[in-house]
Amino acid sequence: MAKKENGTRAILLIHCPDQQGILATVTEFININGGNIIYLDQHVDKVEHIFFMRVEWELKGFVIPQDRITEYFDTLYAQKYNMSFKVYFSDYVPNMAVFVSKMSHCLFDMLARYTAGEWDVKIPMIISNHEDMREVADRFGIPFYCIPITKENKAEQEEKTLRLLEDNNVDFIVLARYMQILSDKMIEKYPDKIINIHHSFLPAFIGAKPYHAAYERGVKLIGATSHYVTAELDAGPIIGQDITRISHKDTVEDLVRKGRDLEKIVLSKAVGKHIARKILTYKNKTVVF
Amino acid sequence: MAKKENGTRAILLIHCPDQQGILATVTEFININGGNIIYLDQHVDKVEHIFFMRVEWELKGFVIPQDRITEYFDTLYAQKYNMSFKVYFSDYVPNMAVFVSKMSHCLFDMLARYTAGEWDVKIPMIISNHEDMREVADRFGIPFYCIPITKENKAEQEEKTLRLLEDNNVDFIVLARYMQILSDKMIEKYPDKIINIHHSFLPAFIGAKPYHAAYERGVKLIGATSHYVTAELDAGPIIGQDITRISHKDTVEDLVRKGRDLEKIVLSKAVGKHIARKILTYKNKTVVF
Amino acid sequence: MAKKENGTRAILLIHCPDQQGILATVTEFININGGNIIYLDQHVDKVEHIFFMRVEWELKGFVIPQDRITEYFDTLYAQKYNMSFKVYFSDYVPNMAVFVSKMSHCLFDMLARYTAGEWDVKIPMIISNHEDMREVADRFGIPFYCIPITKENKAEQEEKTLRLLEDNNVDFIVLARYMQILSDKMIEKYPDKIINIHHSFLPAFIGAKPYHAAYERGVKLIGATSHYVTAELDAGPIIGQDITRISHKDTVEDLVRKGRDLEKIVLSKAVGKHIARKILTYKNKTVVF
Amino acid sequence: MAKKENGTRAILLIHCPDQQGILATVTEFININGGNIIYLDQHVDKVEHIFFMRVEWELKGFVIPQDRITEYFDTLYAQKYNMSFKVYFSDYVPNMAVFVSKMSHCLFDMLARYTAGEWDVKIPMIISNHEDMREVADRFGIPFYCIPITKENKAEQEEKTLRLLEDNNVDFIVLARYMQILSDKMIEKYPDKIINIHHSFLPAFIGAKPYHAAYERGVKLIGATSHYVTAELDAGPIIGQDITRISHKDTVEDLVRKGRDLEKIVLSKAVGKHIARKILTYKNKTVVF
Repeated sequence: MAKKENGTRAILLIHCPDQQGILATVTEFININGGNIIYLDQHVDKVEHIFFMRVEWELKGFVIPQDRITEYFDTLYAQKYNMSFKVYFSDYVPNMAVFVSKMSHCLFDMLARYTAGEWDVKIPMIISNHEDMREVADRFGIPFYCIPITKENKAEQEEKTLRLLEDNNVDFIVLARYMQILSDKMIEKYPDKIINIHHSFLPAFIGAKPYHAAYERGVKLIGATSHYVTAELDAGPIIGQDITRISHKDTVEDLVRKGRDLEKIVLSKAVGKHIARKILTYKNKTVVF
Repeated sequence: MAKKENGTRAILLIHCPDQQGILATVTEFININGGNIIYLDQHVDKVEHIFFMRVEWELKGFVIPQDRITEYFDTLYAQKYNMSFKVYFSDYVPNMAVFVSKMSHCLFDMLARYTAGEWDVKIPMIISNHEDMREVADRFGIPFYCIPITKENKAEQEEKTLRLLEDNNVDFIVLARYMQILSDKMIEKYPDKIINIHHSFLPAFIGAKPYHAAYERGVKLIGATSHYVTAELDAGPIIGQDITRISHKDTVEDLVRKGRDLEKIVLSKAVGKHIARKILTYKNKTVVF
Repeated sequence: MAKKENGTRAILLIHCPDQQGILATVTEFININGGNIIYLDQHVDKVEHIFFMRVEWELKGFVIPQDRITEYFDTLYAQKYNMSFKVYFSDYVPNMAVFVSKMSHCLFDMLARYTAGEWDVKIPMIISNHEDMREVADRFGIPFYCIPITKENKAEQEEKTLRLLEDNNVDFIVLARYMQILSDKMIEKYPDKIINIHHSFLPAFIGAKPYHAAYERGVKLIGATSHYVTAELDAGPIIGQDITRISHKDTVEDLVRKGRDLEKIVLSKAVGKHIARKILTYKNKTVVF
Repeated sequence: MAKKENGTRAILLIHCPDQQGILATVTEFININGGNIIYLDQHVDKVEHIFFMRVEWELKGFVIPQDRITEYFDTLYAQKYNMSFKVYFSDYVPNMAVFVSKMSHCLFDMLARYTAGEWDVKIPMIISNHEDMREVADRFGIPFYCIPITKENKAEQEEKTLRLLEDNNVDFIVLARYMQILSDKMIEKYPDKIINIHHSFLPAFIGAKPYHAAYERGVKLIGATSHYVTAELDAGPIIGQDITRISHKDTVEDLVRKGRDLEKIVLSKAVGKHIARKILTYKNKTVVF
């Protein structure tokens, strides 16, 4: 494994009010303390005057102990520059829960990548409001919890779901065409940690049955959008989007079929970026490095 | 010229309730009367049960005189099958009016094609509510009419515009980023004959300043949509759409700049299809062959 | 199932020298004998003067018995018009063999579609020159045959493979990143029935390690190409192609990773078109309806 | 004009062997001397171990005089870090020569942008081996030199061309579908300063008539490639590429027509990047920020 050869890497994500010298200061902090920078990405939003940075370095030889880096960085720089920041380490593999309903294409696409080792992630559980995907989960040896949701039991079932997430130390959630609207409570508990795939190029065709709406409108391309879930439906920060061409020949069923290929790739790309800690959010937008 | 060598071609556009044998009947009508079919496209909308057809044939040797074809076809087939149909001839070059405001990119793109002989069309006039594009029109030797529009003079100026269109035997109108909403009267006068370019992937970002709205929403792709103008703003039958990728790096100005390349190509493609009589409309949708 | 409701459908694929009236003749043959045409696609190659047609109709009420249609059509039309033709029926589900080596992405993508019932196909066997994919095959309950190939045993192992294909009544073969060159014997046995995915936009980067070659050349987009296998390496009729953008940021590993998403979608689309009998081949090209 | 408001900007392009701290050092150099960094892009090629950087800053308040910046940077940093570097200033507008033959689409596209003020460039001359484009040049008021090239006069005519380029202080050359191969002498005189558009997705279909070759091969997409010209035909560093879909319906003429839209946009994008000093080259590749 590459990780063993090169040792643990640290990833630092920052955003803060822009001012001169931040980039130089942060890179110097890493260099001077013996860290070898592997990747560095930065962006300045010239309208909002916000500085964004993602820097990844090898910890081998870094003089600050791994478990003190956050504290040191906070003390020395973050407070001074009014930074929002987060440090991640490559030796922690996050836990990802997948929520599904009855459709298998996004689930299969993610499990295929998971099985092939494409992602540094663990999937401790799949949750569904239906039994349909249990067989798929079983094939891949992943615990499957069917938690059917009705108007009456919604609050209770969400509590059960939240407990399961906690018991499994879930770090983030992927809604793989999960056809239930999450409660505000759950959304607040996982801010910028719930990734959804919506089957249209948002903000067009918000809500249910976007392919039917696209067909009705007579559009010449359909899309899919991955985004973080916020309290407002289909309105959270967009991570990625893609489209495919359609024509008058395509029925609603064709749109649904062609859309599946879009959805699964757009969702899996977003999940891959999230796992790699390459997404920063601010003001309902994302910076994706 | 190819036209001289091969003689005049006829183009027949049909749509009607679908039933067995229409395609065979129409192709037989052409074959049996000595027409050589060059292109044939057909489509059946299985939801609406509508049959669409575009057939193009050489008139050389066709036994029905050119100026009687419409009458013959109407009598023999159209009434029987309840067809909407239209016959065009390649020896008639249509007149296209271009409406512009202050931006030159779509206008230049069309005039470049026009000058290069890419389109079988004449441009007898360019109309604008501003003086800015007069110089461009002059360079290409096309009459330019500046008809400034204010709240007060709108009705009067539209009358003037309509007279100019009539005097120049204008067959169809292209709104090349024309920043005025047309009156219902003008729209009714040119049904499916006014092509607009909207600078978003409709139905997202209808109305003014779509790039600003796209920037605010944090989308990852921007688009452009060509459509026929109907009474409802940006809601007419869509002819074509295309998109380009953007990222967090792009400012509103970048969106505007990248969008220009989309707009001009999407608009010119729609105009090309219209000139070639390859677009049929029904129920606020298009069939584009 | 739609099939039960509507009964069996026939699909007729034709290509022949172009001449007037063929389309009318064939559609009339179906109409007059009581067949209800569901889909019709036609194309005329104006350079080669070849007529192509795909027509699909419901057999319910068709006066010619299903098992005599081929004979009747041959007698009445095919000989007269010098047609190459083939009739397929929707009540026959073809057998597809999948050949893989060590990579799982294309295999998973196809098995996911297979499991979800997206394709009207059976997969009686997966063949590999390595053991790696046995576990995946087992998960989906599909017989897996490991037939390792060396220079010495190649002829013998191909014989074994051919017997397996015959014993399982395999209709067509998909090479899902199978890293062995097939013998001419096998290729001749399955003309236009072996679908390969090549990981470049052919004809660029033929042969081994195209991503490395693409990286070396500094291209700004990478591609994937599905094609039928012919005796000449990577030179058979192209079915489909797609590309994705890359930049200077991308390493060879990134190209390989991004390419996987292209490969699996491009391959599966080709397989879907093949299963639906929507591909005609001629002169090393395809017509894909 | 923005330039007047904000004053002159400096753009520094660097590439050098990668080592720790370069980025911090260079940004500190600018910050400490009072420069306000507007844009910063960097890239590390992990295979070649090369560091690339583009940094743009406002000169207002910068303590080093504009005409000494190159010298200071060379003395203080470039020699130490073994850097290749170049400093550009926004108050110098470069001179661009356009070479054309008979086709107008790329020329029109560039002149439209030029006229609209999209590019910070001057076009002192258009050179052609044919008279066809003189009229277009005249319309835009740009001097046009027809320098016909035959086997016999090639050396002599190139001398004449070189003198014209020098007399007009031409900084870089755009080959807008110029159908002549330049001599090595001219290429050496303008290294990474001659931008060509090739009408295929290189490295496929090198040389003459790529659309015919694409048609023959039966590809499902066609492309266009902008690149810097080097001694080897169509083999220089690629700047940008794009493709469009085609099908069996498209004739060679359709490919040529569809290709024109690709060519002009791909070429103009490359020219825009070049003018903005956003392209670095090394080892026959480009870094495009």
